[in-house]
Amino acid sequence: MEVFIEPIGKLMNEFSKLPGVGRKTAQRYAYKVISMPEAEVRAFADALLDVKRRVRFCKICGNFTEDEVCAVCRTRDSSVICVVKEPKDVVALEKLHEYSGVYHVLHGVIDPMNGVTPNDIRIKELLGRIREGGVKEVILATNPDVEGEATAMYIAQLIKPFGVKATRIAHGVPVGSELEYADEITLARALKDRKEL
Amino acid sequence: MEVFIEPIGKLMNEFSKLPGVGRKTAQRYAYKVISMPEAEVRAFADALLDVKRRVRFCKICGNFTEDEVCAVCRTRDSSVICVVKEPKDVVALEKLHEYSGVYHVLHGVIDPMNGVTPNDIRIKELLGRIREGGVKEVILATNPDVEGEATAMYIAQLIKPFGVKATRIAHGVPVGSELEYADEITLARALKDRKEL
Repeated sequence: MEVFIEPIGKLMNEFSKLPGVGRKTAQRYAYKVISMPEAEVRAFADALLDVKRRVRFCKICGNFTEDEVCAVCRTRDSSVICVVKEPKDVVALEKLHEYSGVYHVLHGVIDPMNGVTPNDIRIKELLGRIREGGVKEVILATNPDVEGEATAMYIAQLIKPFGVKATRIAHGVPVGSELEYADEITLARALKDRKEL
Repeated sequence: MEVFIEPIGKLMNEFSKLPGVGRKTAQRYAYKVISMPEAEVRAFADALLDVKRRVRFCKICGNFTEDEVCAVCRTRDSSVICVVKEPKDVVALEKLHEYSGVYHVLHGVIDPMNGVTPNDIRIKELLGRIREGGVKEVILATNPDVEGEATAMYIAQLIKPFGVKATRIAHGVPVGSELEYADEITLARALKDRKEL
């Protein structure tokens, strides 16, 4: 005899597709759904379908939007472009409320080990934006890992001929952390990139 | 400017209603959904609605079922009834593949502090089943906490006049644990309920 009846088992399978959700968590989620009022479950299902129906990529920056061009591209200073790997990196930066420029989402980084070449990510589109003129600075904000660094370096080289400033986010010890626990590469980088006060 | 566009924010709100899901996790789930093929998202939404549409309570034991009477009540030994607090307790017990009797889901335990009286849980229904005859043993498998214990004691008293055996799951040190770390009440219980080998 199956432990779960079919509709519950099916819903658990769907929940299991979400990142970090195992059988036990999927069961908790499914049981919670059963206990929700029908209208609430309907709203949940609608929200799922709506996200697929309404969300698309901004044709300029590649971030999620409901329109052809996203609100950031439409309204902000387009002379500074911040290049990131994924849409969720835009979220992280937007939460700061510090940055007033626009973005360019690569949807990946160069990763030859996994078969991702420069042609597989949105580098052409970035060069297209620069060619159109008006761009003064490109901030390379890919992750501080091997692929992110390589991608930043690669793009910086491509940008140089256009006379546009290419900058990279700073590496160093995280604020509030302890030197003792910083890894050696980070600490060496923090020392090398020291600033005069 | 909102960090998330409306359909994404809405879906994040829905995910936040699931137990233990905060903003960050809801964001991860929503972004995963955006990256899923449309057919998969549709299957997800259908599974949500299906669970609400198809799952109901067994009119005998109160567990989840698609039919009027669940498969356990239809096919198993109904002379032994295992009484549990919630449907998920049935799942835990069924996973053992050790128990061949039927269940009775109370959908709660007596909890005067939170206004739950014996009339608010499915005790009447349990007595009805016993009155119909054929029941030899009622295993009280509510949680080993204050409310679970009190509920088990209360039901045991009610059952006595029917001449039906009322048993309680054993308390003691968990298998594989260390005595040193067992709490005092559990250890005292384990000592008191010792068995001859």
